[in-house]
Amino acid sequence: MKLNCDLGESFGAWKMGLDDDVMPHIDMANIACGFHAGDADVMASTLTLAKQHNVQIGAHPSYPDKQGFGRRSMVLSEKELTNCLHYQIATIEGMAKVQGLTLSYVKPHGALYNDMMANDKILQTVINAIASYPIDLKLMILATKNANKHIQIAKSSGVDLILEAFADRQYTDDGHLVSRTLEGSVHNKAALLKQVTQLLSDGSVTTRTGKKLTLNADSLCVHGDNADGIALIKDIKALCNSAN
Amino acid sequence: MKLNCDLGESFGAWKMGLDDDVMPHIDMANIACGFHAGDADVMASTLTLAKQHNVQIGAHPSYPDKQGFGRRSMVLSEKELTNCLHYQIATIEGMAKVQGLTLSYVKPHGALYNDMMANDKILQTVINAIASYPIDLKLMILATKNANKHIQIAKSSGVDLILEAFADRQYTDDGHLVSRTLEGSVHNKAALLKQVTQLLSDGSVTTRTGKKLTLNADSLCVHGDNADGIALIKDIKALCNSAN
Amino acid sequence: MKLNCDLGESFGAWKMGLDDDVMPHIDMANIACGFHAGDADVMASTLTLAKQHNVQIGAHPSYPDKQGFGRRSMVLSEKELTNCLHYQIATIEGMAKVQGLTLSYVKPHGALYNDMMANDKILQTVINAIASYPIDLKLMILATKNANKHIQIAKSSGVDLILEAFADRQYTDDGHLVSRTLEGSVHNKAALLKQVTQLLSDGSVTTRTGKKLTLNADSLCVHGDNADGIALIKDIKALCNSAN
Amino acid sequence: MKLNCDLGESFGAWKMGLDDDVMPHIDMANIACGFHAGDADVMASTLTLAKQHNVQIGAHPSYPDKQGFGRRSMVLSEKELTNCLHYQIATIEGMAKVQGLTLSYVKPHGALYNDMMANDKILQTVINAIASYPIDLKLMILATKNANKHIQIAKSSGVDLILEAFADRQYTDDGHLVSRTLEGSVHNKAALLKQVTQLLSDGSVTTRTGKKLTLNADSLCVHGDNADGIALIKDIKALCNSAN
Repeated sequence: MKLNCDLGESFGAWKMGLDDDVMPHIDMANIACGFHAGDADVMASTLTLAKQHNVQIGAHPSYPDKQGFGRRSMVLSEKELTNCLHYQIATIEGMAKVQGLTLSYVKPHGALYNDMMANDKILQTVINAIASYPIDLKLMILATKNANKHIQIAKSSGVDLILEAFADRQYTDDGHLVSRTLEGSVHNKAALLKQVTQLLSDGSVTTRTGKKLTLNADSLCVHGDNADGIALIKDIKALCNSAN
Repeated sequence: MKLNCDLGESFGAWKMGLDDDVMPHIDMANIACGFHAGDADVMASTLTLAKQHNVQIGAHPSYPDKQGFGRRSMVLSEKELTNCLHYQIATIEGMAKVQGLTLSYVKPHGALYNDMMANDKILQTVINAIASYPIDLKLMILATKNANKHIQIAKSSGVDLILEAFADRQYTDDGHLVSRTLEGSVHNKAALLKQVTQLLSDGSVTTRTGKKLTLNADSLCVHGDNADGIALIKDIKALCNSAN
Repeated sequence: MKLNCDLGESFGAWKMGLDDDVMPHIDMANIACGFHAGDADVMASTLTLAKQHNVQIGAHPSYPDKQGFGRRSMVLSEKELTNCLHYQIATIEGMAKVQGLTLSYVKPHGALYNDMMANDKILQTVINAIASYPIDLKLMILATKNANKHIQIAKSSGVDLILEAFADRQYTDDGHLVSRTLEGSVHNKAALLKQVTQLLSDGSVTTRTGKKLTLNADSLCVHGDNADGIALIKDIKALCNSAN
Repeated sequence: MKLNCDLGESFGAWKMGLDDDVMPHIDMANIACGFHAGDADVMASTLTLAKQHNVQIGAHPSYPDKQGFGRRSMVLSEKELTNCLHYQIATIEGMAKVQGLTLSYVKPHGALYNDMMANDKILQTVINAIASYPIDLKLMILATKNANKHIQIAKSSGVDLILEAFADRQYTDDGHLVSRTLEGSVHNKAALLKQVTQLLSDGSVTTRTGKKLTLNADSLCVHGDNADGIALIKDIKALCNSAN
């Protein structure tokens, strides 16, 4: 079970995330591409950090909305979204090459991620954009009840998926994340570690309604926003290591 | 003598330049990379157009200043300028690859071009940025009296130069362009065609003071802003063809 | 019947609209506030032009999306939209004061205008933002079958409406504009002048299905994008003058 | 002696500065206007905070360079700089009015502040922009050996100055700040409090070379970036209160 984390989300003079502390403990870095966060300098230093710790790198593209941090849905045409993805993938891929690194996957960010999971047309546009980019790139999406359908859709366009689960979030019965606005939607430490343990033992989570749902996730999404997050990442990593 | 032209300088709903009319007549397209002009959609369509007409493509990076169209000098650190160039080169290089195209050179835009020609430290930073980008890229700069020095500087960093001359601009004795604010600095049609003819016949221009200056330019910069510009490009192309 | 037109939609080096040619013929200038178009220099010169021709000025605020020209819907919270409107109104109001001008109304732009007409919650947020701005400002919206309801909603928040009709667009039976994607949705010159004549004579339009719909518009929206548009504005103005 | 502090320098999801902790202890808040930092939401909440603590508010305009945080010098024409200042002053002035607040001064930020102190032409442009803005606004600049000259220049354009000194920075003999790159340029706590005490007792500082220089500052600039900064502000405030 690989750990992935959103990184490179600083911008100019503004710092976000404890990237230096997170990088040693994760396997995959989802690096912001300048549309919701990141800039040329942040990208370069994040890539350097990933290289130092031998972490796999992915593009973390977004709708073009820095003020809204890519969290606000925008209505883009298929063509606009495609070009918007190519632009961001190209940027991070080229800057990675400068440091001798190879981009290996794409994980959409924020509202684009949510829209992609909620709307098959947007998912298909994302898949097509990745398929038409001239290097091998996987797409990271949420592992839900529809995972097999998603795998088939992507495969027929020549794209492999990486299915991710969340350590800290409660699940609905169809494998989506329970809205943060609902009580109990974000796990405390004990519940989080229990969920990780269950995912590692049999690939399942227990949903909000108490049902067991098999997700078969390839990767766990973790967060390095603060010291508590870093401590949790270390705990999760330890669980993963002992499960191997 | 190859013709180069700045293209892809539209942005969003704003159109600039008669790219459709220019592309059939030029050899090299300097494509804006989104910092002074251009965006994901404009880049994609400009690259498609270049592909249709089999035109060589170059990155046309700028200081990050869309409102000022990259015409206002900015004080960037060496590291900031390097990352700013890698970012833009990466973007256009990757988007070109999507269409099966290969980026072959870099021509800085506006204030960055002027600063590079006036300041050897900035020129060296540009050269280093190109040298450290992991595909073969030439650098296009102004052919001046210092051309041989520039060629040596670039060569010692492993970068080849493309020296360009201007058809429509009067020259100083050291091979720089006479400021547009001075009368006679921008040639009328007759003077322009005369300058092109002279460049084609013996590689020289006649400077503002009447001296003959050898430039040995590899490429001529032309402008496709309006119908008159397109007509001039056709005339210049005809002169080039008959000179071959 | 007053003529209103979107103006000040250039940006940096990019020109849009024949503002110099339009301004002498209109009564109300909807001036872009920098979010979809316009910048400090464009605003200043547009305000100067409005002053020269004694044209009433309105703020033309948008979602924050310059690349998309404010034509792409964005999901903003009520608070974000309110602040986004205050910001833009404040900017143009203050820059108008520098020239001794007083802002008198607000007309939302593009996707924000459409969202406001389609969604009463967004309309109410726009009304509240205007009501809470500390100078008297009217709100310009589309004159539809719901005009009386809209007038009441606005009035109960202390805001007066300016109802606008379109000269060049075909109407649905409920007083909305027929989608541009449908044939016949944009009038030719004869149909346009006929629609203006009818609006001036009895305040009505004939809808796509042939029904007569009373709109009682206060203002007509015209477009000054090109020479044909300018000629039409003069014709419309002549009709208005002869109707007075 | 009034304390002033740069505030409202967060942007979107990025937080900067402990504004909540600083505001209760200062007299004047220099609020970012969206060009180097701040956005509509940040401005609104910063103004609310200033209102709660009855703090005087000033515009803190910058060159348009969010990525560079306004710290990179840009070559703007006189007209561009004027419009750029009017735009930012208008924005914050109008948003302040929404909350019943009155803007009372302008303090340029970063590179613009430095350029203004180093170049009399830029200073004059700033003064003229403030003089032409239609409400009474003072200009805050650095108290240097040239303070009387600056006061005269501003007065002849109808603008009053607020002269500020820095608690934490070492001074050159002509009253400029010693470059941060030099050792000893930024005071430790003891040296800082000593400098404040001296400023309060006879309006002077002791320069890097050991000379006594009278500054007669109206305000002290303090920094609220972190907990140590907040503690220092409280200490400085205590010194000011006991000096009154």
